[in-house]
Amino acid sequence: MRTRTKILALLALPLCLPALADPPKGSPPKARDTPPAAQILSESKRWEWRRPDPENLLVMRLPSGRVVMELDPAYAPLHVANIKTLVRQRYFDRVAIVRVQDDFVAQWDDPEAVDGGDPHKVRSLGRAKATLPPEFTRPIARSLPWVRLPDGDVYAPEVGFTDDFPAARDPAGNETWLVHCYGTLAIGRNNPQDSGNGSELYVAIGQAPRRLDRNLTVVGRIVEGMDQLSALPRGDGPMGFYAHPKDRVPILDIRVAADLPAAQRPNIEVLRTDSPTFQRLLQAARDRHDAFFATPPGKVDICAVPVPVRDLSKP
Amino acid sequence: MRTRTKILALLALPLCLPALADPPKGSPPKARDTPPAAQILSESKRWEWRRPDPENLLVMRLPSGRVVMELDPAYAPLHVANIKTLVRQRYFDRVAIVRVQDDFVAQWDDPEAVDGGDPHKVRSLGRAKATLPPEFTRPIARSLPWVRLPDGDVYAPEVGFTDDFPAARDPAGNETWLVHCYGTLAIGRNNPQDSGNGSELYVAIGQAPRRLDRNLTVVGRIVEGMDQLSALPRGDGPMGFYAHPKDRVPILDIRVAADLPAAQRPNIEVLRTDSPTFQRLLQAARDRHDAFFATPPGKVDICAVPVPVRDLSKP
Repeated sequence: MRTRTKILALLALPLCLPALADPPKGSPPKARDTPPAAQILSESKRWEWRRPDPENLLVMRLPSGRVVMELDPAYAPLHVANIKTLVRQRYFDRVAIVRVQDDFVAQWDDPEAVDGGDPHKVRSLGRAKATLPPEFTRPIARSLPWVRLPDGDVYAPEVGFTDDFPAARDPAGNETWLVHCYGTLAIGRNNPQDSGNGSELYVAIGQAPRRLDRNLTVVGRIVEGMDQLSALPRGDGPMGFYAHPKDRVPILDIRVAADLPAAQRPNIEVLRTDSPTFQRLLQAARDRHDAFFATPPGKVDICAVPVPVRDLSKP
Repeated sequence: MRTRTKILALLALPLCLPALADPPKGSPPKARDTPPAAQILSESKRWEWRRPDPENLLVMRLPSGRVVMELDPAYAPLHVANIKTLVRQRYFDRVAIVRVQDDFVAQWDDPEAVDGGDPHKVRSLGRAKATLPPEFTRPIARSLPWVRLPDGDVYAPEVGFTDDFPAARDPAGNETWLVHCYGTLAIGRNNPQDSGNGSELYVAIGQAPRRLDRNLTVVGRIVEGMDQLSALPRGDGPMGFYAHPKDRVPILDIRVAADLPAAQRPNIEVLRTDSPTFQRLLQAARDRHDAFFATPPGKVDICAVPVPVRDLSKP
């Protein structure tokens, strides 16, 4: 009884491949057992993986290391373009993570703007727009990939994956939108719906804040380094803001991957959600049979199986 | 545009009162607006709050401060009793958090058992049982409170709150169980379903791992200090285990609150989920109308509104 085999671990389907769990120990697997996620992924084919366009990858350097974000211009073209304009103006060099609210968001911004002090110290938006029409939803179109998840959803008429991002659809209203899951990247704004411009971004770090769907512009998700945001000390001020400027986490810089020398670009691939391997992962999460599981969950939530990412630069 | 009012914050409904968000700035609230959560809570009545039985509260001391857990013996009587036996034998004094896996769990255990080294160094379970029948579910009974959440669920036929914990029911199978949300406390085990004994516990720190429902014994939830678990550095070994023993987070001790001097007991209250105020909170999350929201979510997930806790020792 005192040999601890940590079987719990194999139930996790974390964001990145290296953390994927080992097969259960203790009882030898049976031929009919649901294979563990790591095995399913190891049996994937080369063509099932997609290399993100470096024009859609942002690389943020924190003192602790690198965070990589994938943007989806099909869902938020104006905001994605504005963020890239800001990035290319070096707007985000030496901004800071100013807020980490437990079970909610990590958020970065110009510290001077947060302090509300001297307006002359606030960074110029330069050629970037100060206001943008909201991109909370967009019309459904044939050009948008759609991998429907048939398991149902509490919030939306239909959920699934588009461009390998978790998303929802309302066929009756002819609308579709990227949903807020763990790791979702979106645009902070004020009350006016056009007040977001991409200079202030947040990442969901707790239970999927689905109530934000269709109320904020989602631009993408974290594809590497999520734990460098999720494990940050929570802010001690109201709403998780760091009460003391010294506690803020400096962002060294943010770059578009395409602007980096080839050797510095993330060498990552995202599993295609229309691939047989991703469907096997979903089915394994839904209908798990092995020595550990007593009752297969039967269903899978849209935010319960993060789309796998692999880093080809790691062994 | 450059005055940042951080409206996003008010959408959060975090675990504890002090973090509850301020009303929106920028646009003056209208009389018909959905009140912010902080206002709803400030209008609660004294009788709507429940003081947890100190026999069901565990107080864990970490170097960083205190974590308080509430246990629910109605759902896991054998495991709750065994944990308390272990606590009263000082089993957990100087054990450690040995695993923090991003978007999944923080877990503590006897480090010697994890290392699998000299069995003589492994702590004795003493009078506690080494194996226990699983308490993954229990029969539905009239004695169990049930505050049904009518919004639906992906995983269970019915969800709601029991003893102010998030839970699910299968009326056809006459079963009920506590569900895995952010902050849920449950028992690690090996493959045999009776191999959990409460000496190894985990807390969910990411997206609700609902696939674990009915497969592991849930004993309660964190009611104070959640961020001291959720913000810990993620383990660098497989499955989020700390690869190096020096990285483990020592647990100074765990005590049953009833065994502490009165002045040291947590002075907390939990909002009753059958109260009008909790129902108002759910309704505000579901059908929000104010200057910020474009589209009310319409629904609320069982894990989306943590049951509020207030600390009466704070101003």
